Amino acid sequence: MVTFSKKEFPVEKVRKYLEPGPIVLLSSRWQDQTDIMTLGWHSVLEFSPSLVGCMISGINYSHTLIRESGECVINLPTAELVDRVVAIGNSHGPEVDKFGANHLTPQQAERVNAPLIAECYASFECQLYDNALVDSYNFFIFEVVKAHVATHPEYPQTLHYTGDGIFTAMGEKIINRRDDFKPELLAP
Amino acid sequence: MVTFSKKEFPVEKVRKYLEPGPIVLLSSRWQDQTDIMTLGWHSVLEFSPSLVGCMISGINYSHTLIRESGECVINLPTAELVDRVVAIGNSHGPEVDKFGANHLTPQQAERVNAPLIAECYASFECQLYDNALVDSYNFFIFEVVKAHVATHPEYPQTLHYTGDGIFTAMGEKIINRRDDFKPELLAP
Repeated sequence: MVTFSKKEFPVEKVRKYLEPGPIVLLSSRWQDQTDIMTLGWHSVLEFSPSLVGCMISGINYSHTLIRESGECVINLPTAELVDRVVAIGNSHGPEVDKFGANHLTPQQAERVNAPLIAECYASFECQLYDNALVDSYNFFIFEVVKAHVATHPEYPQTLHYTGDGIFTAMGEKIINRRDDFKPELLAP
Repeated sequence: MVTFSKKEFPVEKVRKYLEPGPIVLLSSRWQDQTDIMTLGWHSVLEFSPSLVGCMISGINYSHTLIRESGECVINLPTAELVDRVVAIGNSHGPEVDKFGANHLTPQQAERVNAPLIAECYASFECQLYDNALVDSYNFFIFEVVKAHVATHPEYPQTLHYTGDGIFTAMGEKIINRRDDFKPELLAP
């Protein structure tokens, strides 16, 4: 499996990759435990600070690692990784080494202890920003503190989950309406 | 513009249409004021009750109508509506009649006063469920109390926003991995 060559990316612009609503892989580490989970329930919340909210169910082992460490990495898989995404969703930590079992390569992050996933198109290092809704809704508000994004292609073919084992893939049909937008609605 | 023939849909299954992360049109009504806004920052939070979180910036006129009425409708436009989606994003209530100016047809909802948008593929009637993060993040947690979904096609071509005036369209490439999922992860 190819790993993507990534560059640092402005954290205030991660909406480019998260707002379209892809399935992501959350990687986490606490003490000597590492996990990966699939996630489709997330929302951008703010540009700067770069905030993302994630609903991480308590049945996931990752929930504990992220709650205890206050950190995770949001990784963006492309459609080629669909079989591993399904396998990760089917397996449960800590019995399974999610990296080894799925032939995924952990990479050292810069700002957090949780590892990046080399085979993903992008990786966003996150620190817990607000836990106000963790007890009531398992909803974690993270700040993206460092972003790594592949330089090619510009619009990756991402996976989007509809339930019942069915994904849709996105990225092939691009609709550019930039000229129709009010200038103040576009990024400088 | 065609209007979709819709049927009642189970509220606990709206993730099928919202989890993939489409741009939606929020319609709202308070007293004699009606508005529509575009929204890309949303996340499913729970199956039952059917909860959806939406980050509705205070600069939107809709924010006031939704905050005061405690209601809205989440409508799902397909790619054919891209020009109206852009026009709605460019305009600001209450100066503009968003329905009239965009040739959209309001329909009476069943459980809320906010109108459905007939030209959208699906409409989800929502009541404010928890305002705990409204002051701090403009994040509204809604319960979907009634869902109306078109019967055809099963996977609509939705719009997904990447910023900078550029959308991607989804729905043409379906990846079915149902046979690979653990049975307990699939809906009954």
